[in-house]
Amino acid sequence: MANPSILILPGDGIGPEVMAEVRKIIDWFGAKRGLNFDVSEDLIGGAAYDAHGVPLTDEALAKAQAVDAVLLGAVGGPKYDNLDFALKPERGLLRIRKEMDLFSNLRPAQCFDALADFSSLKRDVVAGLDIMIVRELTSGVYFGEPRGIFTEGNERVGINTQRYTESEIARVARSAFELAKRRNNKVCSMEKANVMESGILWREVVQKVHDEEYPEVELSHMYADAGAMQLCRWPKQFDVIVTDNLFGDILSDCAAMLTGSLGMLPSASLGAPMANGRPKALYEPVHGSAPDIAGQGKANPIACILSFAMALRYSFDQGTEADRLEGAIEAVLASGLRTADLMGPEGGKPVSTSEMGDAVVKAL
Amino acid sequence: MANPSILILPGDGIGPEVMAEVRKIIDWFGAKRGLNFDVSEDLIGGAAYDAHGVPLTDEALAKAQAVDAVLLGAVGGPKYDNLDFALKPERGLLRIRKEMDLFSNLRPAQCFDALADFSSLKRDVVAGLDIMIVRELTSGVYFGEPRGIFTEGNERVGINTQRYTESEIARVARSAFELAKRRNNKVCSMEKANVMESGILWREVVQKVHDEEYPEVELSHMYADAGAMQLCRWPKQFDVIVTDNLFGDILSDCAAMLTGSLGMLPSASLGAPMANGRPKALYEPVHGSAPDIAGQGKANPIACILSFAMALRYSFDQGTEADRLEGAIEAVLASGLRTADLMGPEGGKPVSTSEMGDAVVKAL
Ligand SMILES: CC(C)[C@H](C(=O)O)[C@@H](O)C(=O)O
Ligand SMILES: CC(C)[C@H](C(=O)O)[C@@H](O)C(=O)O
Repeated sequence: MANPSILILPGDGIGPEVMAEVRKIIDWFGAKRGLNFDVSEDLIGGAAYDAHGVPLTDEALAKAQAVDAVLLGAVGGPKYDNLDFALKPERGLLRIRKEMDLFSNLRPAQCFDALADFSSLKRDVVAGLDIMIVRELTSGVYFGEPRGIFTEGNERVGINTQRYTESEIARVARSAFELAKRRNNKVCSMEKANVMESGILWREVVQKVHDEEYPEVELSHMYADAGAMQLCRWPKQFDVIVTDNLFGDILSDCAAMLTGSLGMLPSASLGAPMANGRPKALYEPVHGSAPDIAGQGKANPIACILSFAMALRYSFDQGTEADRLEGAIEAVLASGLRTADLMGPEGGKPVSTSEMGDAVVKAL
Repeated sequence: MANPSILILPGDGIGPEVMAEVRKIIDWFGAKRGLNFDVSEDLIGGAAYDAHGVPLTDEALAKAQAVDAVLLGAVGGPKYDNLDFALKPERGLLRIRKEMDLFSNLRPAQCFDALADFSSLKRDVVAGLDIMIVRELTSGVYFGEPRGIFTEGNERVGINTQRYTESEIARVARSAFELAKRRNNKVCSMEKANVMESGILWREVVQKVHDEEYPEVELSHMYADAGAMQLCRWPKQFDVIVTDNLFGDILSDCAAMLTGSLGMLPSASLGAPMANGRPKALYEPVHGSAPDIAGQGKANPIACILSFAMALRYSFDQGTEADRLEGAIEAVLASGLRTADLMGPEGGKPVSTSEMGDAVVKAL
C-alpha cells in the first residue's frame, strides 16, 4: 500500500520556521516507528502571492484535494495589508477551507499545567481546562452572498450575508455530538437566536439532530454574548461548544487566550470522508504568522507539532502515536525548556525554535 | 422652565425591583438638590406582551420619543421563550433602540476596587480597569434586510444581512472620538476587515473621520478575534473601543464579565441631539432580567442606579451630581454592604435590593 500523503503549506511569517520542526517529527516517525509519509510542499498566503500573484494557485489547491492531510503554518503579514481583498493572504486560507469543504473546525482550548500561570485568569479557573470548540468553517457570513461595497444614493454601503442551510447546520452539529461522545458527553450550542433568524434555524436544527440521533448527549443552548461571558467566568462548565463561523472565530480565540497556552494550541479542520474513508483534513496552529518575530528563531513550534499530532489521530488513525507525541511535548515542558513566549516569572531554560523541535524528537 | 422628563420602563424579571431603588434616588435629588424630574412609567418586553400582546406599544414608544431620557430595567424571561420572533421581549428593546435611532451605545467596563477579587482574572490584570466600549446599536446584522427563514429547494435556509453605510459608521466613530478626547485620547476600532467587506468599509471610514476631524486622537485597528484575545489578556491596553452592533454585543459582555462587576455596570444609548440640545437617550444596566432571582429581593440595584448617574451626566449636564451619586455608591461598597451577587470569600454585610437602595440614599 502506498504511504499516506501529506501536503505542507508553511505560509508566511513564522510558518516556515515552525513547520521545519514538524518535518523533524515526521522524519522521526518514519525512521523509528515505520510510519512513512509522502510529503510534498507548496505555497499559500503572502508567499504564494509573491511567487505567483495569487494567495493560492489552482495547482496547490489540486494537490491539497489529492492528499490525505494538509499541514498549514500561518498566513498574513503587514507587507500584504494594502493588497486587494481578493489577493490578500487570508483569501488563500479561506479558499482552501471552502474548496475542500472543511466544515468542521476543531479548536481545543487546553491549559497545560506547566503553563497555567501564564493565563491572565486565576489558576483555579484554568488549571486542567480542556474544552473543544467546534466551529462551522465553510459557510455563514464568511462566504454568504451578496457581499461587497456598493453605492447607494450618494454614499457607499458595506454588505455581507449570514446564511446557513439546514444541512450545513446538521453536519457540523453531528460532528460536535460525535466528539462529545468520546469526551464528557456535553454539547453547548451558541447563537443569537434572540436577534437573528439564522440563529433560530441553527438552534432548531441542532436540537433536532440531538433528539433524533444523539439523545444520550447532554445538549444546552446559549446566546453567544452570554457564552462569551461564561467562557471568561468559568470555562470548565463546558465540554464541547458548537457554533457558527463568525462566533466561532471570536469565541475560540477568546478561549485560546484564556488558557495562557496560545503558542501551544493546534486545530483540525475536517470535511467529508474521502474514498479511502479518511476525512478531508487540514491541520494548523491557532496562532497567527507573528511577523514581528519571524525569522529570529523565537517562535514556539509546539502548536504546529500538536497539529501534526491531531493529524495522526484524526486522519491516520494513530491515536497511540499521537499520545506518544503529546507525551513527549509534556515531558519537554516539564523539563523546563521554554521558547521566548513561554518564559515566565519562574524562569526556565530558554531555547530557540529548532532547539525546541530537537528536544521533542529527543523526548520521543 | 418645565422639569426635565424621564420615562421609566422597568421591563421584566428583576427590572421592576432595581428600578424601584432608582426611584428613591430620583426622589432624593428632587427633595435635596432641587433637581426635579417629571417621571412617567410604561411597559416593555414580556410585561408589555402580557398586558397588550406586543413587546412595545406605539403609545409607549411615542412617550419615549417625547421625554428627555428613558430609563430601562431589563427584558426577557423563559415564559416568553416560545413566542413568535416578532413578539419576543427582545423585539421591544430592539424596536425602541431603532425607532429612537440610538446609534451609540456606551458600555463602560470598569473594575470596582472593592470587587476586584470577584473577577476570574488576576487582580493586577483588572484592578483599576476603566475602558469604554462604544457599540453601534441601530444597524448591522441586527437590522439588515433581507432576513428570515426561507425555503430553497428541499430545505430551509436562515438569512441575516450585515449592512453598514458610510454615514452610519462615521457618526458612531465621531461619538467614540469625542469620548476619547475626554478620557485617555485613544480609540481602537475592531472589525473583521480581513474577511468581511463591511469591515473594510468600517475601517476606511473610521480612519477618514479620524484623519479629517480627530487627528489628535490616537487611533488603532484590530481584527475582532484578536480584540477578544487582547481584552482577555491585558484589557488595560485599551481606552475607547469602537465596534459594530454584533461584535459590540459580544466584546462588551466579555469585557463586562472580566471586571467581575457585572451587577455594577450601567450603559447609555445615545442618538442625535433633540430640539432642546439634549441627545435622545436611553439608560439601562448591562445585566439582564435574571428571572431566576426575580421577586426575591436579591438583585443588585447598583447597575441601574449607575445608569441614572449616566443620565445625569449625558442627558442633564449634571456631572457634579453624577459624581456625587457615584461617590455615594463607592462609600456604600467600602462600608461592606453587599447584595447576594457581591458576597465573596471575604464576606461583608448581606443586604437586600431595597436595603442597598436605602443605603445609597443615606450615603448621599
Ligand atoms: C486569518 C483569518 C481569515 C482566520 C479567520 O477569521 O477564520 C483566522 O482568524 C482563524 O481563526 O483561522
Ligand atoms: C437582549 C438582546 C436583544 C440584547 C442585544 O443583543 O443587543 C442584549 O444582549 C444587549 O446586549 O443589550
